[in-house]
Amino acid sequence: MATKRSGGKQARRKKPAMDFSPRADGTAGGMYKPLTIHEMERIHAAALDVLQHVGMKGATPTVTELALAKGCSLDNEGRLLFPRSFMDDIIADAARDFVLHGQEPRHDIDARANQVHFATGGAAVKMLDSDSGEYRPSTIEDLYDLARLCDTLPNIQWFARPVVATELENWRELDLNTIYACACGTTKHLGSSIIVPEHVPEIIEMLDSLLGQEGAFRNRPFLSVHATTIVSPLTFAEDSSNVATAAARAGMPILSLTGPQSGATAPAALAGTLVQVVAESMGALAAINLVKPGHPVIVGGWPFVSDLRTGSFTGGGGEQSLLSAAMAQLMSFYDLPSGVAASMADSKVPDNQAGYEKAITTLLTAMGGPTFVYESAGMLASLLGCSLESMVIDAEMISNIRRCMRGIEVNDDTLSVTVIADAARGPGHFLGHDQTIALMESEYVYPEIADRESPDSWIEKGSQDMWARARNRVRDVLSTYYPRHIEAGRDADVRQRYPIRLDPAHMIPESPRWRPVS
Amino acid sequence: MATKRSGGKQARRKKPAMDFSPRADGTAGGMYKPLTIHEMERIHAAALDVLQHVGMKGATPTVTELALAKGCSLDNEGRLLFPRSFMDDIIADAARDFVLHGQEPRHDIDARANQVHFATGGAAVKMLDSDSGEYRPSTIEDLYDLARLCDTLPNIQWFARPVVATELENWRELDLNTIYACACGTTKHLGSSIIVPEHVPEIIEMLDSLLGQEGAFRNRPFLSVHATTIVSPLTFAEDSSNVATAAARAGMPILSLTGPQSGATAPAALAGTLVQVVAESMGALAAINLVKPGHPVIVGGWPFVSDLRTGSFTGGGGEQSLLSAAMAQLMSFYDLPSGVAASMADSKVPDNQAGYEKAITTLLTAMGGPTFVYESAGMLASLLGCSLESMVIDAEMISNIRRCMRGIEVNDDTLSVTVIADAARGPGHFLGHDQTIALMESEYVYPEIADRESPDSWIEKGSQDMWARARNRVRDVLSTYYPRHIEAGRDADVRQRYPIRLDPAHMIPESPRWRPVS
Repeated sequence: MATKRSGGKQARRKKPAMDFSPRADGTAGGMYKPLTIHEMERIHAAALDVLQHVGMKGATPTVTELALAKGCSLDNEGRLLFPRSFMDDIIADAARDFVLHGQEPRHDIDARANQVHFATGGAAVKMLDSDSGEYRPSTIEDLYDLARLCDTLPNIQWFARPVVATELENWRELDLNTIYACACGTTKHLGSSIIVPEHVPEIIEMLDSLLGQEGAFRNRPFLSVHATTIVSPLTFAEDSSNVATAAARAGMPILSLTGPQSGATAPAALAGTLVQVVAESMGALAAINLVKPGHPVIVGGWPFVSDLRTGSFTGGGGEQSLLSAAMAQLMSFYDLPSGVAASMADSKVPDNQAGYEKAITTLLTAMGGPTFVYESAGMLASLLGCSLESMVIDAEMISNIRRCMRGIEVNDDTLSVTVIADAARGPGHFLGHDQTIALMESEYVYPEIADRESPDSWIEKGSQDMWARARNRVRDVLSTYYPRHIEAGRDADVRQRYPIRLDPAHMIPESPRWRPVS
Repeated sequence: MATKRSGGKQARRKKPAMDFSPRADGTAGGMYKPLTIHEMERIHAAALDVLQHVGMKGATPTVTELALAKGCSLDNEGRLLFPRSFMDDIIADAARDFVLHGQEPRHDIDARANQVHFATGGAAVKMLDSDSGEYRPSTIEDLYDLARLCDTLPNIQWFARPVVATELENWRELDLNTIYACACGTTKHLGSSIIVPEHVPEIIEMLDSLLGQEGAFRNRPFLSVHATTIVSPLTFAEDSSNVATAAARAGMPILSLTGPQSGATAPAALAGTLVQVVAESMGALAAINLVKPGHPVIVGGWPFVSDLRTGSFTGGGGEQSLLSAAMAQLMSFYDLPSGVAASMADSKVPDNQAGYEKAITTLLTAMGGPTFVYESAGMLASLLGCSLESMVIDAEMISNIRRCMRGIEVNDDTLSVTVIADAARGPGHFLGHDQTIALMESEYVYPEIADRESPDSWIEKGSQDMWARARNRVRDVLSTYYPRHIEAGRDADVRQRYPIRLDPAHMIPESPRWRPVS
């Protein structure tokens, strides 16, 4: 039996469980492996088969020309065929370790396989209104509010714009305002789609102006473009492909997206959907690396699920968990930085269904080991809706998931044989034991808004459910937290040069929109 | 490239995803391994250290006498010390494959390691009233209603009594009525504690009378006793130990329980809690096997978690998920049938918090591979409360979890290379493809009450959340589903001989309590 005293100095040195230091705020993944290595090899081989023999339709002239020069060919339908040896080189030479910058260095992220971060995501067009609890079209103010709320949530490390400003119909205004609202709301790394390639340089100019320095963005590119360069099955989308090309040339990191939907735009067999999503993801990766070898790309293969009774997208089922986790595992197999989607509840409100749908998909996906879990906070209604309250709740859920991912530390101290002997032969409990006191903050995570009251105390405090408590938190944050990292003079300059629609009255503490909880 | 047509005959032969045949209704577990083999060996070694050197206090005279005859010893504080070789024999000779019977054979369960089933559980004293949505003391009627609701939920395979009939103060009446209400409400395998050993034979007599045949219960023992024979740390509880002895002698299977709580009655270090729960579980297993070698025992080590800010039990955190999953993994390591607890939400209502707390703990625990996940449906308020609606919701959640556990099938057909080529070169979608039609029922699970409507359609149908939809389902079931497997004459006989308190008016379709949804 071990005789040395457990729970001594070593235990006391531990840091709080969730105190991740800057640039190391990922959580190791990979403890869930839905596929065997042999199964991954078969999926890989089948995906390369597809790329070599079926190929991709609609490659842009730029990509086609570069590809043909590297040994690819066109079939008689004009499909670009990628030979196996070419794809081997693409996968071998792709960027696998790079920094995604925040506006502030404390939010920089080391992007590499199997080190997991959580990001928002989505392009919802409806907002579950915080006051009425009903859906209405989402606006640029919602986007700004979501950004600054996200800025206060340490469990979410990247802010991808969750909603579309539906009132902005002009494409240029939409793109500029979307990026502006995100960049003013949070200093975390940003993600957004960009509609046409011409907007890329103008967005970068605007961001340089916000930061007050030409070339500032290229120095620390803190915005990734979400480029859905594929229309499934196996077809390049022209505008998005050109946006990706423009972004690569401008030094903007790319989340390269494809979203085949099982049974609709991908096979109903889950394994077949994985073959297709790998083929499409690798095809998109090839196109970007042809334009700019080694460009920072997050491989965003998002295999989606259809409810085959209706053909509609459904994000909350077990099939989605399996597909997302397997895609993460496959990208770790390639050692490529990846982003997959989870937490895409079908429920319309942050209720019990939303809770379990989000938890199951997010937990399994994160444990599968992607670099980013997208859509991981705030989304409802199969990605059609977004909610501030859901974002707060989901961030709390993620702290629980990250605690699970941290696992159990087994060593002589933690095995606690002497501690057990002390308590069993002594007081019969462990409440005041040195080890208990030493581990209180390091071994346990305490929720911020989840309820652990006794039933009586919970009733005394008003019998609030999670949605109600989250609403209070949202009000507290949004009535008080107005980030001031953009210098006023620069903001005025930007507003003079670009058609900024976000009302300045919404960006100051006297904003009429938000009042603190009474 | 594969050339044969996928999605043909073989795919068409598949059975619906969740159509588990009788006696095979488990789901393979073990895909989540929180501990390495080396870590399990260290925990095992530490637990045997504890049993050998610290031992167990308060063994009954029966157990002590049998143990001393087998080479155990008493230390100078009267603690029973179990030598390693003795424990090796206990573990080697324990029952590892037996049937737990239902009243109906279709509910029989093959109990063995790593084949996972879901059970209710708990001893809540409060019921979240279905009408008022508020807590009130639980009654014998609640227990009967929970039993018949469970009888309709295929994802729950064992009914352990979730609530205590708080109006029954007499111990004998409480035990008899508890078993009576359970046995009348469902024909699934039953679990309940029994307060004192004298009640064991009387309960068996009563069950024989209900079945109309002496010896019927011994023939197909469809009730397991939940015997918490341990008070942590490392102390036998006298009454429960004697109940376990009486049950073993009467041929009643035993769920042998210990529930050490980290930081309170077990070490704050999670690994240390595992050492203690393994030691206590093996000590309890030894005591039963001394009385009756090879008796059917489900090893129920339930490591619980304290919120160390208050000392209160908390069931919803990441630490609970890890402990329960690790305990399941350890029992698979021993190849012993096991039951661990999950789904013990701290939330007081079936809200978003309950959803994610239950999902994370249940998913990880089930993937850890116990034979039974207890407490898996209906429990709220850190086990103090129970809800009919939660039971329905949790059963739906479990169908999602079981789909995840089934995993992804990878073979030439499912890899779908030809299917992808067909669609990419042909219609550009997979909607009408043979494979899609063939896999619609086998590859996908469709929820029963979870919402997958479009936002507009959901609003049209009344904007109901999961709790509201579950309430409708509860009403539909409880106003119509009255099991009639107990013959009226036998029931009358039992009511004449035993102090049955469940009002017969509550057990017929004209019951005033439940009205269908208007």
